[in-house]
Amino acid sequence: VTSPRPSILHDVGEDRLVRVLTAGLKQGQDVRVGPGDDCAVIGRDGDKIWCLLKTDCLLEGRHFLPNTPARWVGWKAMARSISDIAAMSGLPRHAMVTLAVDHGRPLQYVRSLYRGMEKAARAFGISIVGGETASSPGPIFLSIAMTGEVEPARCICRNGGRPGDALFVTGRLGGSIRGRHLRFVPRVKESRWLTDHFEIRAMMDLSDGLGADLPRLAVASGTGFELSREKIPTNRGVTIDEAISDGEDYELLFAVSQQDAEHLVSEWARRFSKLSLSRIGVLTEKSRRTKEELPKGYDHFAQPR
Amino acid sequence: VTSPRPSILHDVGEDRLVRVLTAGLKQGQDVRVGPGDDCAVIGRDGDKIWCLLKTDCLLEGRHFLPNTPARWVGWKAMARSISDIAAMSGLPRHAMVTLAVDHGRPLQYVRSLYRGMEKAARAFGISIVGGETASSPGPIFLSIAMTGEVEPARCICRNGGRPGDALFVTGRLGGSIRGRHLRFVPRVKESRWLTDHFEIRAMMDLSDGLGADLPRLAVASGTGFELSREKIPTNRGVTIDEAISDGEDYELLFAVSQQDAEHLVSEWARRFSKLSLSRIGVLTEKSRRTKEELPKGYDHFAQPR
Repeated sequence: VTSPRPSILHDVGEDRLVRVLTAGLKQGQDVRVGPGDDCAVIGRDGDKIWCLLKTDCLLEGRHFLPNTPARWVGWKAMARSISDIAAMSGLPRHAMVTLAVDHGRPLQYVRSLYRGMEKAARAFGISIVGGETASSPGPIFLSIAMTGEVEPARCICRNGGRPGDALFVTGRLGGSIRGRHLRFVPRVKESRWLTDHFEIRAMMDLSDGLGADLPRLAVASGTGFELSREKIPTNRGVTIDEAISDGEDYELLFAVSQQDAEHLVSEWARRFSKLSLSRIGVLTEKSRRTKEELPKGYDHFAQPR
Repeated sequence: VTSPRPSILHDVGEDRLVRVLTAGLKQGQDVRVGPGDDCAVIGRDGDKIWCLLKTDCLLEGRHFLPNTPARWVGWKAMARSISDIAAMSGLPRHAMVTLAVDHGRPLQYVRSLYRGMEKAARAFGISIVGGETASSPGPIFLSIAMTGEVEPARCICRNGGRPGDALFVTGRLGGSIRGRHLRFVPRVKESRWLTDHFEIRAMMDLSDGLGADLPRLAVASGTGFELSREKIPTNRGVTIDEAISDGEDYELLFAVSQQDAEHLVSEWARRFSKLSLSRIGVLTEKSRRTKEELPKGYDHFAQPR
């Protein structure tokens, strides 16, 4: 930032940009968790239910292509936000849709987009309570704002991990670009089950790839981590490096105490026989080197210009 | 829609598009007001406070220009959503920001945007609880999702007007493009005062111009309307037709019973000596001709391609 030419966003990177922009924002007393976690958490002392707030966007050419079926674009838009609500162990409730689209587009395209969103909304008990459209000459931009709710004792953030906690991921990682990034099912059921039966210490969903997301969880928890590379569950035809860096897995990454870990593995297998659960490593005392070992995940602003 | 070529958004128009897209959306039991009003309203029987939800966006080249000071863009983005909360007589509470911007932009520009949003947030007691950024090659796109709260008895929709009700607008209309569209102050205080002292039957904020917005209020209320053109309060250098069609006034339009109207005028003058209040017409029995008389307000999708 001391360079003679003014900083541009590309030099800053997405994580630092969000930190710079949201640092020092004044938060009301009811804001339990502000910017930086999967969702914001709103609740006053004594409330039986806390409110989760999340906003997320899809951009044509980046998160989907012009020829991607519109229904799947709609599904993906909704499912991404649902996945963030699941990452806090919440239940999604209401969604609002903001769509910027060229006014030369066929009405049918936008209707299909909505049908995809409705399908996801129905599947997860969400009401779409607002829809705004704006005519834009640029690529399609679709933003979803979502509310959710969670019991205070079950609200899991990224920052509760402790050294020694076992690290788990659901499902298999990597290669989502072949289609899973559009058609994934957010892990609401699994996340609710986890907090109903175990003391989950920290959790997040994998959107930018394990290589980008795990360090975020560790930094938030004030820990380091050790990965057992050979334990990382890969999708077919995907290398371990790709599984670490590809992104858009929308699986859960979470930390539980070592003593709970064994019990969790057996209970999980009984409850979710079709979805794998993998113990991929451990949180450690904070160390200086954690990030360099990993192939990096996706950063919007660090992509080639 | 029976034409041989497929309908495009331009042919449909903004109002009809939103109706088409949101028709038949399944709403949960807690959704008091769904798409179509200024905000969605969420509340269960017996709740002392209802939740308001709103999303709104600004697009570079349409709602502001590349050389518009970024602070004012930020202020405007926040103030527009606050104005919608005010239109239901609510208090704004939390905001989430979604920003799509080219990664070649100076960091300073985006910081100034945020500073403008923060200023508006602080002025109205709002916590900015989430910020997402995405790199986009297109024009800057800034979307705000906002929550608000309102007492059930004070929640005013567009649909409560009755034939015979007097129609009022706050402030003066027209010519906002000269600067007021960036620097306006949402009418939260005024709206809260109104519902604290009077039975406001229907209310909305003027964003697309009286000529587009008044028919929406009348249609929602199942009434017609009569405008006293000479009573329309115009800004300096603005014709009455321009005051009707310009848009982006962000003043309140509301209906009260005839018997309350006189009393309101005198009380208003005592409370808000610097802001005019004008009685501009009356709601009537539903009639076939209401819309044609008015110069039309702004419709995103009906603009020349």
